[in-house]
Amino acid sequence: MRILVANVNTTQSMTDSIVEQARAAAAPGTEIVGLTPRFGAESCEGNFESYLAAIAVMDAVQSYPGPFDAVVQAGYGEHGREGLQELLDVPVVDITEAAASTALFLGHKYSVVTTLDRAVPLIEDRLKLAGLDARCASVRASGLAVLELEEEPERAVEAIVQQSELAVTQDKAEVIVLGCGGMAGLNDQVRERTGVPVVDGVAAAVTIAESLVRLGLSTSKVRTYAAPRPKKVIGWPVPAAD
Amino acid sequence: MRILVANVNTTQSMTDSIVEQARAAAAPGTEIVGLTPRFGAESCEGNFESYLAAIAVMDAVQSYPGPFDAVVQAGYGEHGREGLQELLDVPVVDITEAAASTALFLGHKYSVVTTLDRAVPLIEDRLKLAGLDARCASVRASGLAVLELEEEPERAVEAIVQQSELAVTQDKAEVIVLGCGGMAGLNDQVRERTGVPVVDGVAAAVTIAESLVRLGLSTSKVRTYAAPRPKKVIGWPVPAAD
Amino acid sequence: MRILVANVNTTQSMTDSIVEQARAAAAPGTEIVGLTPRFGAESCEGNFESYLAAIAVMDAVQSYPGPFDAVVQAGYGEHGREGLQELLDVPVVDITEAAASTALFLGHKYSVVTTLDRAVPLIEDRLKLAGLDARCASVRASGLAVLELEEEPERAVEAIVQQSELAVTQDKAEVIVLGCGGMAGLNDQVRERTGVPVVDGVAAAVTIAESLVRLGLSTSKVRTYAAPRPKKVIGWPVPAAD
Amino acid sequence: MRILVANVNTTQSMTDSIVEQARAAAAPGTEIVGLTPRFGAESCEGNFESYLAAIAVMDAVQSYPGPFDAVVQAGYGEHGREGLQELLDVPVVDITEAAASTALFLGHKYSVVTTLDRAVPLIEDRLKLAGLDARCASVRASGLAVLELEEEPERAVEAIVQQSELAVTQDKAEVIVLGCGGMAGLNDQVRERTGVPVVDGVAAAVTIAESLVRLGLSTSKVRTYAAPRPKKVIGWPVPAAD
Amino acid sequence: MRILVANVNTTQSMTDSIVEQARAAAAPGTEIVGLTPRFGAESCEGNFESYLAAIAVMDAVQSYPGPFDAVVQAGYGEHGREGLQELLDVPVVDITEAAASTALFLGHKYSVVTTLDRAVPLIEDRLKLAGLDARCASVRASGLAVLELEEEPERAVEAIVQQSELAVTQDKAEVIVLGCGGMAGLNDQVRERTGVPVVDGVAAAVTIAESLVRLGLSTSKVRTYAAPRPKKVIGWPVPAAD
Amino acid sequence: MRILVANVNTTQSMTDSIVEQARAAAAPGTEIVGLTPRFGAESCEGNFESYLAAIAVMDAVQSYPGPFDAVVQAGYGEHGREGLQELLDVPVVDITEAAASTALFLGHKYSVVTTLDRAVPLIEDRLKLAGLDARCASVRASGLAVLELEEEPERAVEAIVQQSELAVTQDKAEVIVLGCGGMAGLNDQVRERTGVPVVDGVAAAVTIAESLVRLGLSTSKVRTYAAPRPKKVIGWPVPAAD
Repeated sequence: MRILVANVNTTQSMTDSIVEQARAAAAPGTEIVGLTPRFGAESCEGNFESYLAAIAVMDAVQSYPGPFDAVVQAGYGEHGREGLQELLDVPVVDITEAAASTALFLGHKYSVVTTLDRAVPLIEDRLKLAGLDARCASVRASGLAVLELEEEPERAVEAIVQQSELAVTQDKAEVIVLGCGGMAGLNDQVRERTGVPVVDGVAAAVTIAESLVRLGLSTSKVRTYAAPRPKKVIGWPVPAAD
Repeated sequence: MRILVANVNTTQSMTDSIVEQARAAAAPGTEIVGLTPRFGAESCEGNFESYLAAIAVMDAVQSYPGPFDAVVQAGYGEHGREGLQELLDVPVVDITEAAASTALFLGHKYSVVTTLDRAVPLIEDRLKLAGLDARCASVRASGLAVLELEEEPERAVEAIVQQSELAVTQDKAEVIVLGCGGMAGLNDQVRERTGVPVVDGVAAAVTIAESLVRLGLSTSKVRTYAAPRPKKVIGWPVPAAD
Repeated sequence: MRILVANVNTTQSMTDSIVEQARAAAAPGTEIVGLTPRFGAESCEGNFESYLAAIAVMDAVQSYPGPFDAVVQAGYGEHGREGLQELLDVPVVDITEAAASTALFLGHKYSVVTTLDRAVPLIEDRLKLAGLDARCASVRASGLAVLELEEEPERAVEAIVQQSELAVTQDKAEVIVLGCGGMAGLNDQVRERTGVPVVDGVAAAVTIAESLVRLGLSTSKVRTYAAPRPKKVIGWPVPAAD
Repeated sequence: MRILVANVNTTQSMTDSIVEQARAAAAPGTEIVGLTPRFGAESCEGNFESYLAAIAVMDAVQSYPGPFDAVVQAGYGEHGREGLQELLDVPVVDITEAAASTALFLGHKYSVVTTLDRAVPLIEDRLKLAGLDARCASVRASGLAVLELEEEPERAVEAIVQQSELAVTQDKAEVIVLGCGGMAGLNDQVRERTGVPVVDGVAAAVTIAESLVRLGLSTSKVRTYAAPRPKKVIGWPVPAAD
Repeated sequence: MRILVANVNTTQSMTDSIVEQARAAAAPGTEIVGLTPRFGAESCEGNFESYLAAIAVMDAVQSYPGPFDAVVQAGYGEHGREGLQELLDVPVVDITEAAASTALFLGHKYSVVTTLDRAVPLIEDRLKLAGLDARCASVRASGLAVLELEEEPERAVEAIVQQSELAVTQDKAEVIVLGCGGMAGLNDQVRERTGVPVVDGVAAAVTIAESLVRLGLSTSKVRTYAAPRPKKVIGWPVPAAD
Repeated sequence: MRILVANVNTTQSMTDSIVEQARAAAAPGTEIVGLTPRFGAESCEGNFESYLAAIAVMDAVQSYPGPFDAVVQAGYGEHGREGLQELLDVPVVDITEAAASTALFLGHKYSVVTTLDRAVPLIEDRLKLAGLDARCASVRASGLAVLELEEEPERAVEAIVQQSELAVTQDKAEVIVLGCGGMAGLNDQVRERTGVPVVDGVAAAVTIAESLVRLGLSTSKVRTYAAPRPKKVIGWPVPAAD
C-alpha cells in the first residue's frame, strides 16, 4: 500500500520530519511517500497561505507520477481536503480531523495545542465544519511560529507542555492533540510531562488511511465530493514560475 | 467610493451581469469595478473549482492597479473571503454572508435556492462557519448548472420559483436568498411569484460594503485576519500561463 | 428617505444623542426623526422596563403623523422589534441585531460591552433569538447604569475600555459592539484605546435601514410578521395619563 | 395557598375555562384566582398582541388587592414572564415552559400542537430561550384561531388530533403538549385518540407553582430578575381608558 | 399515593437521609418508601459503579412486593432511568433531571455543585441527554467523596458553599443545584450563605412525581420506553450472592 | 495483538458472525477473540436489555483469563463503553462510535440504518454523547428485529437497502452505517445496491483498536475514566445463576 503524505508548506525539512513520523506509525508493507508542494509559503500560518497550500497540495498530488492508495494532507487546520476528495478516488485523510477523531476514543474531552494564536480560529473552524468540535475543550496557542518548532526544539517543548498542562487543569482536557504537522515527534515528551495521551495527527492519519484502504472504503461520490464536472478551466495545472 | 466586485469564475458575461446588478444597488457616487479572474473555472460548482477561485480572486484583487475602498466577493458559497481579509485593509464582503445577514432583517427564517445539488453542502458549510445558519430553513437546489442560468433564463426562473415555493410552504421560509452570483436579476420575478422578499447577494453585499466604508469600519487586524507574516512564498503572484 | 429612530426610554437628552449619532451615519438625503416614547422608564435596565418600552415604542411609531420609510428601534437588548414588524409595512431594524450583524463582517468573533450586569442575560437572549450569537465571544458589563453614561462620560469611557480590553485579550473578541443606545459617540475613543473596530448599533442600524429601503426590501408578511388579525383590542392606543 | 392564574387575553369565558382546568389540577387547599387583563386583545395570536398582553398581565397582577403565593401566566408562547419575575417575590410559572418541562419526564421527544401557523415561531422562540427545545420534535398548527376553539369544539378536537397523530408518526413525538391556554380540557380526548400522554400547560403550571411554594423556592434575585431599580416611570400603572 | 425512592448505592444511612428529605418535601398523604439496592457499590462515583447501580435499582424496584404510584431514582448523574421507564407503567423521575427542570423556573442560569471532579462529566452528559443543559452555567466539584459528605458535614458545607459562590460570581449562575443524593439537607445552609435559591434533587423529584400522578400522566409507551419485547433473558432477576 | 470482541447479547451465533466480520477486517497478526456474555438478553433492543448488557460485557471482559490488547464492544447503540474504560488500561472501542467516526472520512453526511424503530433514540443519544451527531443525516429503522436479521437474511437486505436508499435520496446521506452488530456481512450488498460507501461498525472498530494499540495510545486516566476508587462493592462479580 502506498500513501502519499503531503506537506502543506514548501519547507523540505518539515516534509522529512512528517514522513519520518508517518513511517513510524505505518504498518509493515505500507510505503510512505512525502510530497512537498512546488509553490506556496514556507510555513502556513493564516488563510492566504492556507488557501494557496490547498491548491499547491492538489497540484502536488495530481503531479505524482505513480499509483497510490490514499493521501494524507499533513497540515493542521488547513484548507483543501474537500478539493482533494473531488479529484481523487482514493481516501483522503486530513490530519486535523484524524487527530480529533482519534482523541475521541481516548478521553471525554480533548484540547489542541498549536503554534500561533492566529491559527486558533482556523483550527476551530475546521473542527466545527468536520463536526468534531463538540468534545473539544479548547484550542490553545504555544506562541511559537511553525518554523521556530524546528529551530528551537527545547523552547518548543516547554511552551507546548505549558499549554497542555493548562488544557488539562483548566479546560478539563483528558487528551492533547498536537496541532501542527511540525510538532511530529514531540508527543512522547508531552505525554510524559502531562500524564495524558498525546495524539499526533500525522500518525493518526496514516493509520486511518491504512484502515480505509484495507476495508475497501473510499470517498462517496454521490454528491459533495463527486468529480468536478467537465468544463473549461484556465491555469490548471498551475504554470511553473520562471 | 470605488468597490471592486470580483466574479469567482472566468466567464466575462457573468461578470457583466454581476456588475450590472451591483450598479443597480449602489448609491450615487459609488463606482463599481468588475473583476474577472485570469485563471480558474468557467463556473464554480464544487470544492476544487472553489479553492482555485479563492486564489484567483486574491490574484485579481491584488493585481488591480488603482486604489479601492472595498471588495465584494461575488461567488455564492465559495472559499476565499478570509484570505482577502488578511491581504487587504479595506472591508471585504462575501455575497453568501451578505445575503444571509440581510435576510435576517426581513423574516423569521430564510431559505437559499441555488444551482446544483452538489453546491448545497458547500453553502451549508459557509453559513455554518459564518454563524448565520441558525435561521436558515433550508438550502435547496434548482438542478440547473451555473451556466444554464444564462443560457436558459426561462427554465431557470421556473426551477427557482418552484424550489422557492417549496421553501416557503414546506420549510417555512419567509425570505428567499438567490444562492448564485449568476442569478442576479431574477429577484423581481421570484418575488412576484412567491410573495416573499427575495434577497440578491450582490446587491446586499454592495450596500453593506458601502455602509462599512461610510462608517469607517474595516477588518479587525488583531488576530485572525492580521496581514500574513513576512516569509518566503514561492509562486505568488501566480505565474501567467504561456 | 425618512427614518424614524425610536428611543426606548423617556429621556429626551438620550434621544438627542441617538439622533445625533444616526445623522452622522446617514447618507445625504436621509432624514432622521427622533422619537421619544410618551410613557415608560427614564432608562431601560430590565425586563419590566423593556416590555413597557416595547409597547411605548409601538405607540410612538403609530402616533407619528407623517409618512416614513423605515424604523430603527434604538434600545440595545430590548423587547419589541417583532411587534413593530407586524404593525408596519416598512423595514424595522433593531440596533442589537444591526450591530451584531455588522460586526460579523469585521472579525472572527465580537463582544458586546453593555451597562449593568443585569442587562447581560437580556442581550444574550436577544442575540440567541436573532441567531447572531454563534460568533459572540462574550457580553460584558461595564457596571455603569444607562444614565451614568451621560452624567459621567469620562468614567464611562474608562469602564467601557477596560471591559473591551478584557474582551479582546481574554475572550478573543476581534470587534467590540457598544451595547447601549446611550453609548453612541464613544466608539472613536474605544477604538483608539483597544485597536479593534468598534460598532455602534445606531449607526449600523441606520445604514441597514437605508440599504433595505434602497433595495426595495421589507418585512415578509407571509407568516410570523403578518399584520395582526382584525379583532377587538381594548386599551390601544394606550390612553394618555391625566 | 393562593395562586393567581392570569389569562393573557380579555375574553372572560377563556379565563373561566383556564380557571376550571387549574382547579382540577390543584391540590386540596390551593385557591385558584383567575385574572382577566383589563386591556389587550380578545385573543393573542402574534407579537403585537403578545407584547400588549405582557404589560396587561403585569398590570393585572400588580392590581390584585390581596396576598398570593404564586402566579401562573396562562398564555401559550407569550411574552412577559421575565417582567413578572422582576416585579414579584413569589414564583412565576409560564405555561409554555411548564408544559415542556413536564413533557420531558414522559417521553423521549414531545411535540406542541397550537392554533394558527403564525403562532408557531413565537412558541419555537419561547422554547429556545427557555432552553427546553432540544427534545421538542415539532411545533404544529391546527389552523384554528384561538376563539374558534371555544366556538367549534368538535372541529377543534379533530384538527388537534390530526396534527397530534402526525407529530407522533412523522415527527416521532412521544408526548403531545396542547399549545394554547384555550385548549384546556381537550387533553383526555387527544390522549384517547393518539395513545400518547397529553400535557396541558395550565395543569402542569399549577402543580409546579404549588411545588415551588411548598419547597420554599422562588425566583433568584441576584441578577436577571432583580427588582427594577428605583427610577422615574411614566404611565405605570397604565391609565384606565375613559 | 406511594412513591418509591431508590437510593443508587448500598449505604443504608444514605437511603435514610434521602428518605428524610423526600418526606419533608412530600405532600400530606404521600407515602415515601426508601429502597436500598441489595448489590452495587457503597457509593457511586463513576461509570462502572453507576451502570451496576442502574441494574441494582431496577432489581430493587421490581422486587418491591406492593403496589406503588411512582419511582424516584435518587442518584445524581447516574445511569438507569430509561430502563426503569421501560419496565414500569408508573412515572419515573430522576433527581438529576428533576433538579435541573426545577432550577429553570428560578433563574436565568443554574449551576450544579457535586462531589468529586470525576463525576462532573457524567452529570454533564446526563444533562445533555436530558436536553436540560442549555441554561446550565457550570457543573462544579467540591472535591469531597460521596461518603465524606456524611462523615464530615461541616467540611462538606464549606466546600459546597465555596464552589456555589464561584458558580454565582464567575459562572453567573442564579440558582444552585446540589448534585448528589447525599447532599440532601444542606440546602438551607447553602442558600443562606450564597443568597440564591438552592434546589435539592430529591425534594424536586418527589413533588414532580406527585404532580404527574395527580395529573394522571405517565411514561409514553409508544416508542422509546415501550415494555421490553418478550424474549429469553438469562440472569434476570440477578441471582443473590451466596 | 489480541483484541477481545464482545457481543452484547447471549446469542452465540451472533457472536460467531461478529467474530467472522472482525477477522475479515483485522490485520495479519491480530488475534480476534469473541466473547459472549454469560447473562443478559438474547438480543438488545431497548434500555433495560442494554443496561444489563453493559454489566454483562464488563463481567465477560473481566472474566477473560488471558492478556489482551484492546476491547471492541460490538453492540450498536448500547450502554457500557464508559464502564469498560474505567476498568481497563487497554483501549476500548465501541462500534457505534467507530462506525460514525469512520463515516466522517467518507462523505459530508452519513445515515445509520438499524433494526427496530425503538432503537433509534438510543442510537441518537449515543451519537450525541459521543459528539459524533453533527454530520449524522438520520437514523432509520428497517423494522426488523435483531434476530430476524439472521433468520431472514433476504428480507433483511431488502429492508436495509430500502431505508438506505431513502437516507441517500431524502436525507442526503453520502455514507451508510449499518447500525447493528448483527448486520455484519451485509455491507457489500448494501453498497452495490445504493452506490455509497457502507461502514460496518465491527470492522471499523477492529481497525481503530489496532491503530490505537500500534500507536501506543490508550484511555486517559486523569479524570472521567480513572479506575474505580477502592470501595466496598456487593455482588460483583455477578454471581452465577444456579
